[in-house]
Amino acid sequence: MTERLTAEIVFSDLTEAERERQRRVESVLPAIAAAAEQADAESALPEGHIKLLGDAGLLGLVVPEEFGGLGGGLRDLVATTYALGTVCGSTALAFFFHCSSSSRGMLPLAALDAGLYSDDEAPVVRAFAEKVLTLMGTEKKAIGNFASEAVKASNANVLIRTTATRTEGGWLLNGEKSFGCLSGSADYYLVTARREDVEGLDALTLFLVPRDTEGARPRSPWIGLGMRASDNNGLIMENAFVPDELSLAVPGGFSKATTMSRGSWVGNQIAIASIYAGIAQGVWDFAMGRVMGAKFADTGKPIASSPMHQVMIGDGERHLAEAHLWLRRQTELEASEPPILPKNEVVQSWKLAKGAICEHAHEVALTALKMCGTSGALMGNEIGRAVRDTTMGLVQAFPAERGKLDLAKMIVDNEGWAGLTTTDSFKKDGDK
Amino acid sequence: MTERLTAEIVFSDLTEAERERQRRVESVLPAIAAAAEQADAESALPEGHIKLLGDAGLLGLVVPEEFGGLGGGLRDLVATTYALGTVCGSTALAFFFHCSSSSRGMLPLAALDAGLYSDDEAPVVRAFAEKVLTLMGTEKKAIGNFASEAVKASNANVLIRTTATRTEGGWLLNGEKSFGCLSGSADYYLVTARREDVEGLDALTLFLVPRDTEGARPRSPWIGLGMRASDNNGLIMENAFVPDELSLAVPGGFSKATTMSRGSWVGNQIAIASIYAGIAQGVWDFAMGRVMGAKFADTGKPIASSPMHQVMIGDGERHLAEAHLWLRRQTELEASEPPILPKNEVVQSWKLAKGAICEHAHEVALTALKMCGTSGALMGNEIGRAVRDTTMGLVQAFPAERGKLDLAKMIVDNEGWAGLTTTDSFKKDGDK
Amino acid sequence: MTERLTAEIVFSDLTEAERERQRRVESVLPAIAAAAEQADAESALPEGHIKLLGDAGLLGLVVPEEFGGLGGGLRDLVATTYALGTVCGSTALAFFFHCSSSSRGMLPLAALDAGLYSDDEAPVVRAFAEKVLTLMGTEKKAIGNFASEAVKASNANVLIRTTATRTEGGWLLNGEKSFGCLSGSADYYLVTARREDVEGLDALTLFLVPRDTEGARPRSPWIGLGMRASDNNGLIMENAFVPDELSLAVPGGFSKATTMSRGSWVGNQIAIASIYAGIAQGVWDFAMGRVMGAKFADTGKPIASSPMHQVMIGDGERHLAEAHLWLRRQTELEASEPPILPKNEVVQSWKLAKGAICEHAHEVALTALKMCGTSGALMGNEIGRAVRDTTMGLVQAFPAERGKLDLAKMIVDNEGWAGLTTTDSFKKDGDK
Amino acid sequence: MTERLTAEIVFSDLTEAERERQRRVESVLPAIAAAAEQADAESALPEGHIKLLGDAGLLGLVVPEEFGGLGGGLRDLVATTYALGTVCGSTALAFFFHCSSSSRGMLPLAALDAGLYSDDEAPVVRAFAEKVLTLMGTEKKAIGNFASEAVKASNANVLIRTTATRTEGGWLLNGEKSFGCLSGSADYYLVTARREDVEGLDALTLFLVPRDTEGARPRSPWIGLGMRASDNNGLIMENAFVPDELSLAVPGGFSKATTMSRGSWVGNQIAIASIYAGIAQGVWDFAMGRVMGAKFADTGKPIASSPMHQVMIGDGERHLAEAHLWLRRQTELEASEPPILPKNEVVQSWKLAKGAICEHAHEVALTALKMCGTSGALMGNEIGRAVRDTTMGLVQAFPAERGKLDLAKMIVDNEGWAGLTTTDSFKKDGDK
Repeated sequence: MTERLTAEIVFSDLTEAERERQRRVESVLPAIAAAAEQADAESALPEGHIKLLGDAGLLGLVVPEEFGGLGGGLRDLVATTYALGTVCGSTALAFFFHCSSSSRGMLPLAALDAGLYSDDEAPVVRAFAEKVLTLMGTEKKAIGNFASEAVKASNANVLIRTTATRTEGGWLLNGEKSFGCLSGSADYYLVTARREDVEGLDALTLFLVPRDTEGARPRSPWIGLGMRASDNNGLIMENAFVPDELSLAVPGGFSKATTMSRGSWVGNQIAIASIYAGIAQGVWDFAMGRVMGAKFADTGKPIASSPMHQVMIGDGERHLAEAHLWLRRQTELEASEPPILPKNEVVQSWKLAKGAICEHAHEVALTALKMCGTSGALMGNEIGRAVRDTTMGLVQAFPAERGKLDLAKMIVDNEGWAGLTTTDSFKKDGDK
Repeated sequence: MTERLTAEIVFSDLTEAERERQRRVESVLPAIAAAAEQADAESALPEGHIKLLGDAGLLGLVVPEEFGGLGGGLRDLVATTYALGTVCGSTALAFFFHCSSSSRGMLPLAALDAGLYSDDEAPVVRAFAEKVLTLMGTEKKAIGNFASEAVKASNANVLIRTTATRTEGGWLLNGEKSFGCLSGSADYYLVTARREDVEGLDALTLFLVPRDTEGARPRSPWIGLGMRASDNNGLIMENAFVPDELSLAVPGGFSKATTMSRGSWVGNQIAIASIYAGIAQGVWDFAMGRVMGAKFADTGKPIASSPMHQVMIGDGERHLAEAHLWLRRQTELEASEPPILPKNEVVQSWKLAKGAICEHAHEVALTALKMCGTSGALMGNEIGRAVRDTTMGLVQAFPAERGKLDLAKMIVDNEGWAGLTTTDSFKKDGDK
Repeated sequence: MTERLTAEIVFSDLTEAERERQRRVESVLPAIAAAAEQADAESALPEGHIKLLGDAGLLGLVVPEEFGGLGGGLRDLVATTYALGTVCGSTALAFFFHCSSSSRGMLPLAALDAGLYSDDEAPVVRAFAEKVLTLMGTEKKAIGNFASEAVKASNANVLIRTTATRTEGGWLLNGEKSFGCLSGSADYYLVTARREDVEGLDALTLFLVPRDTEGARPRSPWIGLGMRASDNNGLIMENAFVPDELSLAVPGGFSKATTMSRGSWVGNQIAIASIYAGIAQGVWDFAMGRVMGAKFADTGKPIASSPMHQVMIGDGERHLAEAHLWLRRQTELEASEPPILPKNEVVQSWKLAKGAICEHAHEVALTALKMCGTSGALMGNEIGRAVRDTTMGLVQAFPAERGKLDLAKMIVDNEGWAGLTTTDSFKKDGDK
Repeated sequence: MTERLTAEIVFSDLTEAERERQRRVESVLPAIAAAAEQADAESALPEGHIKLLGDAGLLGLVVPEEFGGLGGGLRDLVATTYALGTVCGSTALAFFFHCSSSSRGMLPLAALDAGLYSDDEAPVVRAFAEKVLTLMGTEKKAIGNFASEAVKASNANVLIRTTATRTEGGWLLNGEKSFGCLSGSADYYLVTARREDVEGLDALTLFLVPRDTEGARPRSPWIGLGMRASDNNGLIMENAFVPDELSLAVPGGFSKATTMSRGSWVGNQIAIASIYAGIAQGVWDFAMGRVMGAKFADTGKPIASSPMHQVMIGDGERHLAEAHLWLRRQTELEASEPPILPKNEVVQSWKLAKGAICEHAHEVALTALKMCGTSGALMGNEIGRAVRDTTMGLVQAFPAERGKLDLAKMIVDNEGWAGLTTTDSFKKDGDK
């Protein structure tokens, strides 16, 4: 094995095309690693990172080649956020939120292929979809994807309260986005809003808001415990004008597109979980290097050979391995053609996978911390950042506890648990 | 999906040949399920089971077709012990110990192909290897594999103290085997012994002892906590005579063969771990069926919908899924061609996989127990058997705690941890 | 330290009176230990045990001296079930169910002192209370306490469906009790029933049913996974006649008495949890003795010194210690005068304590199993019994998962969490 | 209950004198709470804190009244670090390190009473002991205790390499202390050094180094992950002169004193673990207040009532309770007169207690984090500080993994495990 790519820790079966794309990723890792500590301290994505990623072609990683992208798929995205995660979780997260914007191009195109739009709607939808993809691919623009808002209901994750009001030649946006990376650093913000003049899910509309749009600005800085350098400050829009050519305002245009997603609501979230697995791998390499490199003053043996370190190494390796097992499996479930399991079972698996990956990753970080002792427990070094970054994984999207409860509810509310067990044996045993 | 085989819970990509073999397995499950409770109570493999398996062709599952077998490989073995495990762990274990005898035919044949034997040795080795395989395949004989003994050393699992002494036309065996299924029920016992006149590993020799051999008898019954119906009573040999044609007594003949194993010492042990995953799946189906079928007297809802059951369902599904993740991964590592990882990394992974599968399986059984409450916690029903059977998985071969320590030792004793992380990053970080 | 009583592992501050009572307990342990394996195998309380306990005065352990008892309290009961648990969990459980009958005497007496009964009711209540206590004390009779029934509702543990119908000179009982020790072996069964002619909680009535009463018989044997020798077979009553002098049928007579309990509904359940802690202590001593006594063949060191055993010893000691911490604390909370915490906080603590003790005890048993390996994992030895007995602790009354949810509900449903944290800081922080 | 002191969460049986001292503690909590976030951000103990503590008399908390102190004991110290921990872990830690200096006065006085010194040594020892105590008591000086150094050996925690060289009228100190609070802020540094002219443990000597001593300065700032505001920067001494009247340089003077400690080497470390329990209590109150105060937009119910929060509340309460159980028990073992257990068993218990308290405390912080979600996961708020501060508890002194291994080694190396189980039963079972 002459060369081993970081991504091959996860995927032992990369195609040559995937390897080529991962070599691009590998090329940017040293610079991103070098900037990671300061980026965390300053709580800001380093200025040069977007250009660095763009120059390597990676802003178009998951954009089809016809739009100037590299044509990668979910496996590429997972592999890339993982590799970035080994050196800087924040950069990986920002990169993911950029890439996730591509779904706003890809899903509409898929819906067009499926004939979900009328003849009137189709050209408008296609134009927007191609605009998004061309910006990301050919034009190497960074696009921040802003979907979440602060209001929560007991029965759903997110309510959209940002409004779009018709005005001459475009739309006026008003609202506040609570979460979303690349706030202040993306070239465009991709914003979900609700058309005031339409009811229900059909009201959901999409807009590309150029960064320098008047009335659009980051919220005051969010000083998070971890993942601090992803420019995760949210967005405030006050009568922010977006022209028609940067809008997908056809009623139902967006909601029809989301029906094309295989995994969860907008798909691809496994590539966020992948970041935390990458962070775990990175901090584990750091800790192992340290305890193998440091020697006992009297015996000259690595401190890794102490009984305590042996226990920790075993525990850490187990958690690290389990994080990777889940990551491989869920990616395979979401990416393979033909599908291995029906869609509802893929979603059920995701409900476990997300929490499992993040919990195992956090355990790896804690084990690394314990292995390196008090002197290694610094705020800004690999240990401190990994511990803090992986705590964000525990709460991001949903904690493991909620994923498990969601799964249980899905099973009992008559979806069955065929994805993990057999429907037949349930029926059989149910008779007892 | 018109038909779903039990084995497809583990392997979603069975080949048509594998499916055909699994249909044979599926055909014997009802009879084995029906006999399981009584078999456990009586602590004996039901008399008809060997014939049942033989009639279905399964005694030759992993024997090449040229010797009358079905030509299955490790995936078939794992799939089969898993499926048997869902209905009767003991039968699965006895079946595994029969199948593992095939390695005493296959590894010598592989060593012959590799040219490891001299011209004098080769025909003797080949005759023994083909004898073993033909008995299992064409002749549908059950062969119990007896390797373990009671004496333990601090640096190894097993010492062989059974001796083979030359006599006219064959060998006299003396010794006691502490573990090994099909004691009293196999047609032949496959026994490892030590030639008294040879030193070191080369002294290890193999013998096929017919069940009715004078001087060979089961030890007094081992009344185990679980896996009770596998006829796991050990074997006592007192001047038991074995003729030359049932012997592989060439010095070094056996030890050369074992060098051909890819996984651990004699390979295939993942198919034992697979049993426990199967037991977990079986008891989970039972418990889910029960809590979905039982209704609250007042609301009519399944008791599975109670907050407590929801928590347990989430926890159980997580453990069940992790057992399957490990089972799939380790089987893939041991079975795939070309190898995904170097042999030492496959062994490292096994050190975690064994314990992880068994711990997760046991947790599933405990969760099933808790879901079904006091009234379900019977000695002989699915709950009681699964709890007891999976405790045996915790100690069989080695506990998870030891596997983790073994792995840690392998890593620190300079094998590196490249199987799970990257050697490169270790070197890089080791400099810090 | 000239003599150390088993109970002193739990309570380091036994009074001299308590020590005297524990010496009686200590005197019966050898005989009960000797009978434990066979009792488990036969699934029956050994015939001589009731006489053994009676001769030692222990059937009156918690009965006031004025009724011929030893005058012990909750601490004595906890200490005794613990000590019995170290040698035979089943005997300890049967003993507990006998002792719990005393609450049917003690609580009414307390309610009488509190003036809860009218002048008409008082003498009837007193006569019954004194009857129960005199039988247990002076007359050394064993009384099985039968409260539970099989029907469950979503909002409560137990519904009482056994009915009491008025007849000449007494009552006719009809119903089935699903759980309760000493079935077939107690001198009297203490039965809770519902008077057909009274509505609501006031209908709950108490009866002492002599074992040989016509129409009263054990249900068919319950073949449990563990705690098998406690004669835990339930009770069927078909027109079983109980004379007035063995009845407490005053409407509300029983429910008023239960308001005097400090802990949970009928108090004292910590003494059941105590059994499991005792079992854990017993099996730990067994396993430690074994791994200290067994030596490696090559080095002569105890196998307890192996890295794997060192890890297990540390883990087991931690679980064992935590079981004891909870046991001491909850007993102190329920027994101390004046009360340390308000009653609702004592109940909240119990919701955690029950599950914690039983989970830790079970972990100790599993660790002991792993320490002793396959050869120690027998069905009937200390390991097998402890593993099986402690699984019953996981489900008995309620699993830890439910206790935690119950506690959470109590806290959120406005009881606050002052028992474990401070009400003040909640108010303060609640304003944020 | 008219008033509930924070310390009463731990100790329900405070004496009136203890309550009086805790009222002083209670009086400083608001100011320390108000300064905590900024102190953490600036990584420095707030300037006014030493005066604040001094004015409340707390610098003399554990100093006998005859030296101007409050006369508190271990329970007072544990109660105080706990209470301080609920609002600011760093302040609690700095306070502990000040108070621990008192052992350098108290232990020598105890050793004097025990007659361990010669007539020549006694007055020198007494003068130093009284100096330390008078500074802390009457003079309200803060004394930082510097014991640890960076070099580690495989068989011990700490080697002392700081040297004391005789010079006119005093000693010249050279060395570097890696850990120790109040670096730069204490009035005096209490330093352990090794007399160059003496061999072995007898070489250990004690010095009081005034903060402004030439040649003594803090190391460069240690930017820790947590516990950041304790001025934990270590100390460098280069020919730092200490006059005789601030020295305890009698050979063996210090090591004889340490033999008087009941717990571990220099005792009282349970009061550090207590800090982490306090932090856990503080963050739990914060999180509970938040999830009880926040309501679902649709139902108006507290978000604490969601199924996910119910699970988390149950889990968090369990960990919080177990932290308190260990804290109470270990304090009782170390503080009670007469001793409950022999000294070696108290040490064995400490080996578990330290890790258990810190692990449970960290789990509480993580649960609080998960309860409060992404929006609560800030760097500097109660959540972020508690998560970071409690990670330091995982590594401080020794991790739980090491404590368990140490205990196992103590047990197997023939100390027995009588503290937690019974020596008798070991002997009995050891024969099997």
